Amino acid sequence: MTNHEFYMRLALQNAMAMKGQTDPNPLVGSVIVNDNRIVGIGVHMKAGEPHAEIHAIRMAGEHTRGATIYVTLEPCSHYGRTGPCAVAIREAGIKRVVIASMDPNPLVSGRGVSILQEAGIEVIVSVCEEESRKMNEVFNKFIVQQTPFVTLKSAITMDGKIASFSSDSKWITSDLAREDVHMLRNQNAAILVGVNTVIKDDPQLTTRMPNGRNPVRVILDSTLRLPTGAKVVTDGQAPTWVFTTKSHEPEKRKALESAGVKIFVTEKTGKVNPLEVLQVLGKQLISSLLIEGGSEINASFFENRLVDKMIIYMAPKLIGGQNAPSFLGGTGFDKMSDAVELSDVSVETLGNDFKFIGYPIYKEG
Amino acid sequence: MTNHEFYMRLALQNAMAMKGQTDPNPLVGSVIVNDNRIVGIGVHMKAGEPHAEIHAIRMAGEHTRGATIYVTLEPCSHYGRTGPCAVAIREAGIKRVVIASMDPNPLVSGRGVSILQEAGIEVIVSVCEEESRKMNEVFNKFIVQQTPFVTLKSAITMDGKIASFSSDSKWITSDLAREDVHMLRNQNAAILVGVNTVIKDDPQLTTRMPNGRNPVRVILDSTLRLPTGAKVVTDGQAPTWVFTTKSHEPEKRKALESAGVKIFVTEKTGKVNPLEVLQVLGKQLISSLLIEGGSEINASFFENRLVDKMIIYMAPKLIGGQNAPSFLGGTGFDKMSDAVELSDVSVETLGNDFKFIGYPIYKEG
Repeated sequence: MTNHEFYMRLALQNAMAMKGQTDPNPLVGSVIVNDNRIVGIGVHMKAGEPHAEIHAIRMAGEHTRGATIYVTLEPCSHYGRTGPCAVAIREAGIKRVVIASMDPNPLVSGRGVSILQEAGIEVIVSVCEEESRKMNEVFNKFIVQQTPFVTLKSAITMDGKIASFSSDSKWITSDLAREDVHMLRNQNAAILVGVNTVIKDDPQLTTRMPNGRNPVRVILDSTLRLPTGAKVVTDGQAPTWVFTTKSHEPEKRKALESAGVKIFVTEKTGKVNPLEVLQVLGKQLISSLLIEGGSEINASFFENRLVDKMIIYMAPKLIGGQNAPSFLGGTGFDKMSDAVELSDVSVETLGNDFKFIGYPIYKEG
Repeated sequence: MTNHEFYMRLALQNAMAMKGQTDPNPLVGSVIVNDNRIVGIGVHMKAGEPHAEIHAIRMAGEHTRGATIYVTLEPCSHYGRTGPCAVAIREAGIKRVVIASMDPNPLVSGRGVSILQEAGIEVIVSVCEEESRKMNEVFNKFIVQQTPFVTLKSAITMDGKIASFSSDSKWITSDLAREDVHMLRNQNAAILVGVNTVIKDDPQLTTRMPNGRNPVRVILDSTLRLPTGAKVVTDGQAPTWVFTTKSHEPEKRKALESAGVKIFVTEKTGKVNPLEVLQVLGKQLISSLLIEGGSEINASFFENRLVDKMIIYMAPKLIGGQNAPSFLGGTGFDKMSDAVELSDVSVETLGNDFKFIGYPIYKEG
């Protein structure tokens, strides 16, 4: 590990500790080093409060003169509450800036670095870039595409099934894996299931952990079959949004709306179009979506290349059955060479179960 | 680690190094310790040659008096080429015997220990028992049940598929995983596939590695559709045995037999009964069988609870498709609580792929 990596890792660690409290801003950390001594550390803690660099500069005081600042994201160039960080760095007399990753927004990316370089400050980029990008994966997508970062979570057997041929699914994984899912719900702004899941299991889709935040509950329901007595309609624990098509009864819509459910009617008839769902959620400023669908909901997002991250809880058990519902139903891809590879795959054990995380790499076409 | 475990591990390591060369005998290692000093080591190297204890006793010479002998399997009590090892231990003046696992054959298990205890020798059992049992898993089953130890190997996507909906399966895993399969073939006395695999892929089913031993090729083919021009019929690389039912053309049988194929006609009509296959193979002294079947062959052995060990090569990719063939087709189990759990699950990485090994625990009923 180089010195640069050492200091950048410290900045990353501080930034990551703020996970969940900077929304809608990204996680950013900063460290100032002068003469091989750390003279200031900073982190962005809350939207509306100072950026990481400003905290670090204030802590360092006079020691910023001739110092090196490490910052996990390109310093900003815009005039917000505290002025552009790039200008503050220049005015603090800092001589070198080490950056993990550039601003993901193509409209402003590079502007911070330009301000610094025009002032004769040395700029080094891409130190621990991968870690920084991953840390802000949700923000990085949303700021560019204005649609939520989509995580598909599924609990499967080792033969890839989410239930038996008779649709029995209780339980595939152990308590430990199921607890982990509540952490995921806590980290996502919205959670999505199909109406069949609601009809079959009547779930609450809430975060069952201390101080957990409940995601908005999104139900895909092309003909408005959602029962007015379902927990997601009646329990008042979180907003419930239903996406339907024009093929629904106006009476049913009124009943659900008067129970507090928000209804979005998509343009297409037939099935609800998954891309349209993401676009609407983006307009509602939902930056992250967790899909906990069945076989067909999963497949509709996957085959449309809309899943950004896969989290698979795999139990070391086998259920068998060609007709038992697969993790990814639908038609699937034609050729094995068209299969979607996962990158950056990690695996950890949760009790007897395995938790895989990976990022689909969709092929062109 | 206790002293007992330390010496037993050494005996196990020596025994394991003989893998593949002791057939049909088990792997056995032995260490003799006197006054905290190793005075002899022994290992069984080849059927017809001395047992591990005899080699160790010869090496130790006079130092056996008052010594402790470690042996990975209960010393034998039968009069073979070298006389019962239990008697040899007694006559060498050894005072203590530490055993990993008892003889798996219920007809003789405990007899060796009795000879020792009757001579006033202290006997300690079950030191590193699990490792010793696993080392001889093939032998332990075959000696008791007279049917082969069955390993089911499959290469699957992370969503549990062995091919796309259009039956394309080339390739799921990487070269590294496919090389590993040749090692598996080398370790098994027979390999089994369905006739559909032969018709579709025309495989050789041989061990492509230096000095590899080719397993007997077993084909399940209920109506004798095996093409007489198939490589397994014509290449002469290994014996080919076909299991069929009475629903076959006598002419086709004659053609295959004159090409050197051995035909077994099972009693049942319809599909070939998998248990009957194992019983016939056992009578032919086939102690280990590797199944490399498709979805339905895998399911027929799995649902009949005939698979002893699962080896799953899982590629970090997703193909999708409810109709894409699953790793385990068939009907499957009805309730998730009936799913077959795997015990002793290990996972390792082979390039980008994962290799899981586990032992199915079938429920009663």
